[in-house]
Amino acid sequence: MKIAVLPGDGIGPEIIGQAVKVLNALGESFEMETAPVGGAGYEASGHPLPEATLKLALEADAVLFGAVGDWKYDKLDRPLRPEQAILGLRKNLNLFANLRPAILYPELAGASTLKPEVVSGLDILIVRELTGDIYFGQPRGMRECPDGPFKGSREGFDTMRYSEPEIRRIAHVAFQAAQKRGKRLTSVDKANVLETFQFWKDIVTDVHKEYPDVELDHMYVDNAAMQLVRAPKKFDVIVTGNMFGDILSDAAAMLTGSIGMLPSASLDANNKGLYEPSHGSAPDIAGKGIANPLATILSAAMMLRYSLNKAEQADRVENAVKKVLAQGLRTGDIYEEGTTKVGTEQMGDAVVKALA
Amino acid sequence: MKIAVLPGDGIGPEIIGQAVKVLNALGESFEMETAPVGGAGYEASGHPLPEATLKLALEADAVLFGAVGDWKYDKLDRPLRPEQAILGLRKNLNLFANLRPAILYPELAGASTLKPEVVSGLDILIVRELTGDIYFGQPRGMRECPDGPFKGSREGFDTMRYSEPEIRRIAHVAFQAAQKRGKRLTSVDKANVLETFQFWKDIVTDVHKEYPDVELDHMYVDNAAMQLVRAPKKFDVIVTGNMFGDILSDAAAMLTGSIGMLPSASLDANNKGLYEPSHGSAPDIAGKGIANPLATILSAAMMLRYSLNKAEQADRVENAVKKVLAQGLRTGDIYEEGTTKVGTEQMGDAVVKALA
Ligand SMILES: CC(C)[C@H](C(=O)O)[C@@H](O)C(=O)O
Ligand SMILES: CC(C)[C@H](C(=O)O)[C@@H](O)C(=O)O
Repeated sequence: MKIAVLPGDGIGPEIIGQAVKVLNALGESFEMETAPVGGAGYEASGHPLPEATLKLALEADAVLFGAVGDWKYDKLDRPLRPEQAILGLRKNLNLFANLRPAILYPELAGASTLKPEVVSGLDILIVRELTGDIYFGQPRGMRECPDGPFKGSREGFDTMRYSEPEIRRIAHVAFQAAQKRGKRLTSVDKANVLETFQFWKDIVTDVHKEYPDVELDHMYVDNAAMQLVRAPKKFDVIVTGNMFGDILSDAAAMLTGSIGMLPSASLDANNKGLYEPSHGSAPDIAGKGIANPLATILSAAMMLRYSLNKAEQADRVENAVKKVLAQGLRTGDIYEEGTTKVGTEQMGDAVVKALA
Repeated sequence: MKIAVLPGDGIGPEIIGQAVKVLNALGESFEMETAPVGGAGYEASGHPLPEATLKLALEADAVLFGAVGDWKYDKLDRPLRPEQAILGLRKNLNLFANLRPAILYPELAGASTLKPEVVSGLDILIVRELTGDIYFGQPRGMRECPDGPFKGSREGFDTMRYSEPEIRRIAHVAFQAAQKRGKRLTSVDKANVLETFQFWKDIVTDVHKEYPDVELDHMYVDNAAMQLVRAPKKFDVIVTGNMFGDILSDAAAMLTGSIGMLPSASLDANNKGLYEPSHGSAPDIAGKGIANPLATILSAAMMLRYSLNKAEQADRVENAVKKVLAQGLRTGDIYEEGTTKVGTEQMGDAVVKALA
């Protein structure tokens, strides 16, 4: 089985290094091939998603992705900026289903900015549609405003759109995920304002007929943002579009206070996937050996489970992570008095040791 | 000076009643005229924004608005649903600037789900553009998908757009608000993905030249949602578009844990405005006399300040509200042990008494 390893920028290479170490320690024979992406791709060949990198990702059974972005690329034209690589991979690999767990490990309850009773034991799964919506909808661009009171002035515009098959397939993913968990699904929309999301709500309601064992409710996105702050534990699985999912999944991740622990999977229709930590490239701490590699290691575990059909190995990795937390090992981002502060490399080594 | 009073649905009439009582106690001579809106408008004349109500709002110097919405109207076609009234008023009255303070009163710090050290003393102002963006952009609707892999299937679509003058005028409002406060403005966009918000960012940056005393920074909306949870006190004024503002202002309000305390103002270019509490119509507690009227009373204070040019009276009302909090009076939503629980009417009476 072939894994494309794309370290990217900032802390990307450091954290990917630890995940690769853990994968190598499992006693399986994975073929891993590394390629540059993001700023590193731009440096190597003038484009954030070099052709060879895309080809590798297309051929591989799964993609393990670090993080992209650095301030030094801020001045580039948009199509050349690092984050275009991630958009390009999602689109070209048809990775329409983004799974983002927001879990608060009992040992890390203190890291949250929320009161312990509000978040302890938090375990939400956000299912975000990832290849549609206003992220990719055409037409978009700059033009002369064609109508209304500002006719003739310059305007920027984008198109939000969702077709029926796009909504159906992500709804199926979400209902099936809910079946394997608490059997409750919240579909987040803005049906009171947007045509796209009135349609979304109608289709999700229709797909629900095939999952009578799952309880479905609908919530407006503004209310969902409030409820995540007010009573996040009331959620089980949340499904929403690309744009709302971008905002809500980051808010949900931050509720835990330990975004350095949160993995993500982006899947196509055949369980091929791209796996990456939920956090970014953190260029401010890059190269210092202090970044938390656990989100990337847990992303590798998701890869074992969803794309490589190695559920037992996934369990092994996840249990090893729990073990190092129980041992009191912490990188700086999750450090608290009374625990042991370790660096990136030491944390990776500890996970490898805990696999035994 | 003429005030259009639109109580609306659910707890709307109860809370508006208290705000009117407070206004009447100021010793000014306001002409107030009441008209039905939302579900009440639909009951009265078959439309959530009856013609006579719109006419009254257009003629008046300011609009004092309660809340609209009730589950019993959920089955109506979208154009007839209560919330269309609020969209119609915003558009017809050109209320492009929505000001939503998120303030945590020291007495209510315990009501927040966030740790006291994270939120105590919170004082953010969100400036949300209110008549543009994907809320009103044409074209929108349902159609046969015209291109791409799902060509021919049904799709819902909407248009996000912002023209230069729309961005300029809201940016001016935000910079001027920042000048009167902590002199820091965060413009929230999604310039890494959306053409509309790359343009937004460019124009806000240009307007900044006229306000060299204000520090401007730009933040992606997903990051803003995270930072609101992580370190909300770092913000002073936030300016953003209609859709992102809808989500972020509700999240910010919920940080305080006391959304029943938060007023809002929606202003046109001449400081005519609509004033309403940030919370909704809460049909579940309507008619029970337990709703918190303070957000509506504080909205009336904003009306005195912005539209009626009575800053001293606004101060009087705001100080009276602080006084009743200091006296320990609380409605159920903000009640804590050791304070005195009061109903809607009693709370209104206490504010009137505290004006003296
Ligand atoms: C980098 C950016 C384009 C991306 C997105 O908006 O999807 C990121 O925020 C994410 O959530 O993966
Ligand atoms: C009721 C709804 C249309 C409205 C909006 O989305 O603007 C509400 O959420 C608000 O923020 O005032």
